[in-house]
Amino acid sequence: MSVEDLSQRIENALNKALARATVSGPPLLAGAFTHSVFPAGQRIRPRLTLSVALACGDDKPMISAAAAAAIELLHCASLVHDDMPCFDNAAMRRGRSSVHAAYGEALALLAGDGLIVLAFETAALTAVADPLRAASLSMIIARAVGMPNGIVAGQGWESETAPDLVLYQRAKTGSLFAGAAMAGAAAAGHVADPWGMLGYRLGEAYQVADDIRDVMCSEKDIGKPVGQDEALGRPNTVHELGVRGAARKLVELVEDAAESVPDCIGAIALKAQIRAQASRFLPKEAAQHAA
Amino acid sequence: MSVEDLSQRIENALNKALARATVSGPPLLAGAFTHSVFPAGQRIRPRLTLSVALACGDDKPMISAAAAAAIELLHCASLVHDDMPCFDNAAMRRGRSSVHAAYGEALALLAGDGLIVLAFETAALTAVADPLRAASLSMIIARAVGMPNGIVAGQGWESETAPDLVLYQRAKTGSLFAGAAMAGAAAAGHVADPWGMLGYRLGEAYQVADDIRDVMCSEKDIGKPVGQDEALGRPNTVHELGVRGAARKLVELVEDAAESVPDCIGAIALKAQIRAQASRFLPKEAAQHAA
Repeated sequence: MSVEDLSQRIENALNKALARATVSGPPLLAGAFTHSVFPAGQRIRPRLTLSVALACGDDKPMISAAAAAAIELLHCASLVHDDMPCFDNAAMRRGRSSVHAAYGEALALLAGDGLIVLAFETAALTAVADPLRAASLSMIIARAVGMPNGIVAGQGWESETAPDLVLYQRAKTGSLFAGAAMAGAAAAGHVADPWGMLGYRLGEAYQVADDIRDVMCSEKDIGKPVGQDEALGRPNTVHELGVRGAARKLVELVEDAAESVPDCIGAIALKAQIRAQASRFLPKEAAQHAA
Repeated sequence: MSVEDLSQRIENALNKALARATVSGPPLLAGAFTHSVFPAGQRIRPRLTLSVALACGDDKPMISAAAAAAIELLHCASLVHDDMPCFDNAAMRRGRSSVHAAYGEALALLAGDGLIVLAFETAALTAVADPLRAASLSMIIARAVGMPNGIVAGQGWESETAPDLVLYQRAKTGSLFAGAAMAGAAAAGHVADPWGMLGYRLGEAYQVADDIRDVMCSEKDIGKPVGQDEALGRPNTVHELGVRGAARKLVELVEDAAESVPDCIGAIALKAQIRAQASRFLPKEAAQHAA
């Protein structure tokens, strides 16, 4: 399936979910929902969900599309809450106002809450096609975002004076990538757990790419402030290993990710796709360093 | 089943859910979770869930206990977020510090998010006993708290310049009561929709009781600030109808609620229990007015 087809399936599923949530109710909050989810960012996580589902046969595409939408809704919710003044206090996101900057804190808080709920509703609706897969999807996304190991836990580590940095990174970024891969497998009726490692490794690779962008790109390139890690005293792989070292680490992590793909009908194609993905993660200048 | 047994089942189910979420992960956030849920408030909504499940035969008590816990976790999450500075900015709740006052805004925001996730995880876990009921539970609680008609929508109406007051009250208070009743029916394998009206009417009754408490009680009596409706310019039934009128309206609403109980094996006992409940809603002085 081409990149365009994947994009189309993801946007269709998100549009369907948003339409359910915003068909009535308070108009400003409905606007904040839409602002949180559109226009599309990179949609890296839901692409991973669909790619894994396809590699597993994707015998019930209604379920994999819903799984991809649920994963992206949770990602959007985490961005909305993460941008708020009590966390990163970021006024910009994807090249325009963040949700709380555009709609105020109260509606941003509610939009994040509501998108979490919408994600679980979207997962539950797949029960019409397969109640056991629906339940397993719900469990997977709950673990990816909740306590003790999901995004919420990752954010929570930032309030500790002596956080466990490995648990912190795994929870804050890795958990939703792992959930995205597992959700794709579960949506296609496969055992989900063996797919977690692929997600964790891609999540780590994505984190390194994000570190590189934070150092090498301009705000105009990536639609959000750069140099934030230095400004906020956060760890950054480029500070640790240099640009060349960070770029090489990224390529290694992507290779490890490809190697971790479990046996399935589409394993070879998926591995090739993952390796090709490495270059999409990286800004051009860094890709030259990694060569 | 006695009141004590109901309480015990609710607290056990909540303890079990909290134990899953706080077994590891960042300790402060784990503390904020516990502070959000314990010690027990009135637990009115999960009692409604169990009472309805019992009236419907309660053939799978593992599911009804989980449903009750999920409903209460969502209620606690809404209180935590509602108390935050961008909403009511309340420093007290249940007679002690609100969560953001005790743990800071960041952890309060995360605790609310995480409790929403935990509620859906708790519902999804019932799939081991019955995947179809699990899915229907998830749908019911999603509708009770999400957009366009759940708690989040109710809160969202507060940001509109010309809110629809009927939709506002139904969404902010009624929706979770309706969800509580419907979840009880679904947990026992009954069709849930006919139970919504009971919940809405009890929710309206509870809102009137809350209005009365806000006017007639002291902060010490109810563990949170009083006189808030007048201070914040919110509608209050006592201002509209007087204490006697408000107390009578409450009794009527409870009577309507009892009348709306659908046919089921325990309908007579449930109706009696609902009528008895009216007196628990009311402070003593107001109960005399209603007599």
